[in-house]
Amino acid sequence: MTERYVFGTPFDTEAVLDKPAASPESALGHGLKLSADKKKVSYDLDKDDVIYGLGESLHGMNKRGFVYKTFNTDQTKHNEDQYSLYGSHTFILIEGAKGSLGLFTDYPGLVTYDLGFTDKDVLTITAEEADYEMYVITGKSGLEIITEFRKLIGKSYKAPLWAFGYGQSRWGYKCEDDIREVVRRHKENNLPLDAVYMDIDYMDNYKDFTLNPEAFPKFKEFVDEMKAQHIHLLPNVDAAIKIEDGYDMYEEGVKENYYCKDENGEDFIMAAWPGKSVLPDFLRPEVRRWFGLKYRFFTDAGVDGFWNDMNEPALFYSLKGLKETAEEISHLKDETDTLDLYSLWHYLDTMNALANKPEDYRSFYHEPEGKRIRHDRVHNLYGYNMARAASEVFNEIAPKMETLIFSRASYIGSHRYAGIWTGDNSSFYSHIELILHQLPNLNMCGYLYVGADTGGFAFHTSENLLKRFMQVSLFTPLFRNHCALGCREQEIYRFKDIDAFRNLLNLRYALIPYLYKSYVDSIENNKLMFTPIGLAFPEDKEARHIEDQLLVGDDLMIAPVYKANAAGRDVYLPEDMTLYLMKSDKDFTKTELSKGHHFINVDIDEVPIFVRKGKSLTLGKPAMSTAELE
Amino acid sequence: MTERYVFGTPFDTEAVLDKPAASPESALGHGLKLSADKKKVSYDLDKDDVIYGLGESLHGMNKRGFVYKTFNTDQTKHNEDQYSLYGSHTFILIEGAKGSLGLFTDYPGLVTYDLGFTDKDVLTITAEEADYEMYVITGKSGLEIITEFRKLIGKSYKAPLWAFGYGQSRWGYKCEDDIREVVRRHKENNLPLDAVYMDIDYMDNYKDFTLNPEAFPKFKEFVDEMKAQHIHLLPNVDAAIKIEDGYDMYEEGVKENYYCKDENGEDFIMAAWPGKSVLPDFLRPEVRRWFGLKYRFFTDAGVDGFWNDMNEPALFYSLKGLKETAEEISHLKDETDTLDLYSLWHYLDTMNALANKPEDYRSFYHEPEGKRIRHDRVHNLYGYNMARAASEVFNEIAPKMETLIFSRASYIGSHRYAGIWTGDNSSFYSHIELILHQLPNLNMCGYLYVGADTGGFAFHTSENLLKRFMQVSLFTPLFRNHCALGCREQEIYRFKDIDAFRNLLNLRYALIPYLYKSYVDSIENNKLMFTPIGLAFPEDKEARHIEDQLLVGDDLMIAPVYKANAAGRDVYLPEDMTLYLMKSDKDFTKTELSKGHHFINVDIDEVPIFVRKGKSLTLGKPAMSTAELE
Repeated sequence: MTERYVFGTPFDTEAVLDKPAASPESALGHGLKLSADKKKVSYDLDKDDVIYGLGESLHGMNKRGFVYKTFNTDQTKHNEDQYSLYGSHTFILIEGAKGSLGLFTDYPGLVTYDLGFTDKDVLTITAEEADYEMYVITGKSGLEIITEFRKLIGKSYKAPLWAFGYGQSRWGYKCEDDIREVVRRHKENNLPLDAVYMDIDYMDNYKDFTLNPEAFPKFKEFVDEMKAQHIHLLPNVDAAIKIEDGYDMYEEGVKENYYCKDENGEDFIMAAWPGKSVLPDFLRPEVRRWFGLKYRFFTDAGVDGFWNDMNEPALFYSLKGLKETAEEISHLKDETDTLDLYSLWHYLDTMNALANKPEDYRSFYHEPEGKRIRHDRVHNLYGYNMARAASEVFNEIAPKMETLIFSRASYIGSHRYAGIWTGDNSSFYSHIELILHQLPNLNMCGYLYVGADTGGFAFHTSENLLKRFMQVSLFTPLFRNHCALGCREQEIYRFKDIDAFRNLLNLRYALIPYLYKSYVDSIENNKLMFTPIGLAFPEDKEARHIEDQLLVGDDLMIAPVYKANAAGRDVYLPEDMTLYLMKSDKDFTKTELSKGHHFINVDIDEVPIFVRKGKSLTLGKPAMSTAELE
Repeated sequence: MTERYVFGTPFDTEAVLDKPAASPESALGHGLKLSADKKKVSYDLDKDDVIYGLGESLHGMNKRGFVYKTFNTDQTKHNEDQYSLYGSHTFILIEGAKGSLGLFTDYPGLVTYDLGFTDKDVLTITAEEADYEMYVITGKSGLEIITEFRKLIGKSYKAPLWAFGYGQSRWGYKCEDDIREVVRRHKENNLPLDAVYMDIDYMDNYKDFTLNPEAFPKFKEFVDEMKAQHIHLLPNVDAAIKIEDGYDMYEEGVKENYYCKDENGEDFIMAAWPGKSVLPDFLRPEVRRWFGLKYRFFTDAGVDGFWNDMNEPALFYSLKGLKETAEEISHLKDETDTLDLYSLWHYLDTMNALANKPEDYRSFYHEPEGKRIRHDRVHNLYGYNMARAASEVFNEIAPKMETLIFSRASYIGSHRYAGIWTGDNSSFYSHIELILHQLPNLNMCGYLYVGADTGGFAFHTSENLLKRFMQVSLFTPLFRNHCALGCREQEIYRFKDIDAFRNLLNLRYALIPYLYKSYVDSIENNKLMFTPIGLAFPEDKEARHIEDQLLVGDDLMIAPVYKANAAGRDVYLPEDMTLYLMKSDKDFTKTELSKGHHFINVDIDEVPIFVRKGKSLTLGKPAMSTAELE
């Protein structure tokens, strides 16, 4: 059952399209307490209550004990001292002594979740302004509440089957030949591949819907050449539009007044990859349509996959902020002899605060339906509506293609339009563990087409780290090896044990029929694709606190090894299961295990898959691409 | 057996006092390969070889799969993308298919350890210059090699018993009353306490061997007042000396020519907490003695504990570097309209590179025995010789006191003079795990008096995180709760469950007799106090890859819970053991467990202690301080 409470005058995020009637504030029960200013809802926690939710946020699968802030942020440090990542997914599920309770705070600005941090026994949810809707969902179980919530927010985006193929990406592929080499070296080594990603380097000076003409002189032919090899190309599409005289898209937007405005009603000038840029006002349907139709540039050439990036939106700086900072730090020169440390650190902090500055987010405006609204109040809707812009027109501009789109920034509602990836992680073992924690929480917030940058985006991977990362990602819908310019090249063929990597890819492709079926089932039936065993077995006390095992679909459970140099791990089986220890889709051992704790030895080249009682492991035949799957 | 190889003309670090005769280069065997330029030694790894060592470095207990750089660094981010921390401990132990092998690279500058990162099957050790000594140690077992190495480097520093008491610290206690409050609130709550730390705030403008006269008007009386309550005060002593006319210590050093010099033979000017400062040339015995005798300022007042800080040495900037940077970034002001992103990032990088800049470490000099040597070539000896300065004179200036000294920076050799703490960690669960990994590796490098900032230095702790951290630290010689200015206050009495914390402290004090006996035994017999079970049971293949359990002394094993919200953990017993699940020294359950894997449930207020076969758990009676222990 869903109750809806309305506080103040909320902005309609369109997260919920079919809203239940509002309950009077006085009906707010279930132990929830509203503060006098109505910004804060609090709840007393029992000692063993588990809190799920918050989508791609940091920390454990159980979110308890930390603070989270939902304000979409281009945050490259996914460490324990960060509060925000790229997506804001403001649903939590409390599983505890008093039963199960779902809470969705529909507010598109900053919401602070203190989930037993300040006081270990108290949960508080604080919206920056008392203008939001709170949905309170009850049910017989956590999984029932999740399904109820998923129905409320509407059916999730469905990616095509090919989007489950393996993709290779790197910030730094510059031209056709770079991409040809990636494809050739996969083929030469019999490594399955479905996609090569084109990061920002492909563009003409980082202008959206352009190509560097020297690097891609005959793009349509190149797309065809790749298609003939069953390779999809996926260009990156960024939020900001370069300010450049003669750039038709920029000029059209100026003419039509499509960009976000500053306090004075002038186009708000910021910087992203193209340098000085403007931001399309994606909250306006006409701007979305204009931007969406631009994808024809690619779809007409046969491109059927896209990733939307920098759409928090990331601000490298605002022009105003840059000028102020530059003026301020110019004084350092005259102060070096007398400078005290705190003044120096102030200068340093000022420089380092240029990007994604809160003041900048408060200094520009949207005009949805002609009403001016300050950006920070609707900040989390920006990436959502950018992805929506494309998603809404694909049927019109590319009716015969099965397009894929996923985004970095998101807010609940965008799950109906696109998938997401979890942004710029690092080549850290802890980030393998992180995606395990994120998967079920993303699923419950509506995001089914999800995945992490496999091998890690920032920093340098090692062969074994990449293997362990792939052993998780081979179960996720999006399975992309992606890394950053300047980091160690991490295409599979850079390493020694290519045979072992090929086995992992073959296992993925053999699993695709099962994974895709589970994925579609999760969408159609508003279920989780990745289910914590604590939710699947709510009566099992041992299962409640297990954070590194997941049911995948209805039949399988995974318990990956994600620690450096580990030779195995502990697994808890909430029921009897069969362990398949898989070196490849063809080479595996099979062991019957009983309910309870087991330590299992797992070699660096092995993937443990647990088959649930009464279920079986159905593997297809691997192929060099999804197009070649039988 | 120890072989010694000498390459080039090494600087004598005094890590080894009694050097064995050098072997000819041609004798280098054991699968070790020397590069033509003699800078690099490499070794082929077998698949399951485990590599211990490198003291306080990051990553697992098994160091394999990563790169490490030994260059003492004031590094506040202890994340997976860092190569260096505060100490350089250049001993590794390879445990593997070909037996056990110890390698000590005695070079006081940068040594790069690539332990199966670039090539998963190859270990390389690369010294920046081909002027170093390499000790190759063989033996029947890893533990035998460790003992042989420890004998080689000489007996470890022995801290007094009182140094095993609980200490409370915070960057931010400013005056006598702040300290009195800490003591009072511990006493009021019956919380045992032996020490309160005085961080940099106590000084008069951060000048070494001074006190803020307003904050500490009658210091001797204050020390006596604290002593009467069995409280030791431990002032922080920093490396850099403030440049200030009239500051006697600064002026003496100038007069005697005691400071490090720049290229032109002038005093090298850098900044640390006091602002513009100079660095005593601790590599010279006469400078050490001068600095050491300064401790009389404190010992004469009855102070018997010290921590040496900022002695990597940390450089906030060099005056030369600051002037160059300030000049450079002043141009930003004129470029804001035309600036490209890479230029902006260059400015940002330039500002952020002010601290601990490699060029700065190459721009000043020491003059040990009248010979000029560039700092970077002996960098890792700086903190070592600062700690030694004090340690060498305590018997002379405070013969009746049992003094304690520990340092942030270190290099093997300094283990004979002082303990160390593991520097500015954070309130991260991963940093609880980190200290578990560091303890045995520190021990094998000679560091026995060790501990981490309990609760985490940087960032904000939670009640449960502090509990889990204390459940590890209560076994470490140094047991100090320390945190940074601006972070959540984390004295025990700030939290709700004071009873549970008191139980943890009582358990610590009840364990002190056992812990101190084990500590002294480890020193006297050149053993580990914290032993990986893989080393203790070398024939046990299951034990080899267990990184989060440690034998403590001869009788006990610990297997702490260090994950947020975990309700227990897997433990591997290499032999039958008795599990004591301890809520306090008096309230516990006892379970006999057989050799093998077990999942144990561990409540947030429980400490699991495993007693080895044939051994027993001997607890003393808790007391409010070590002085009151029976």
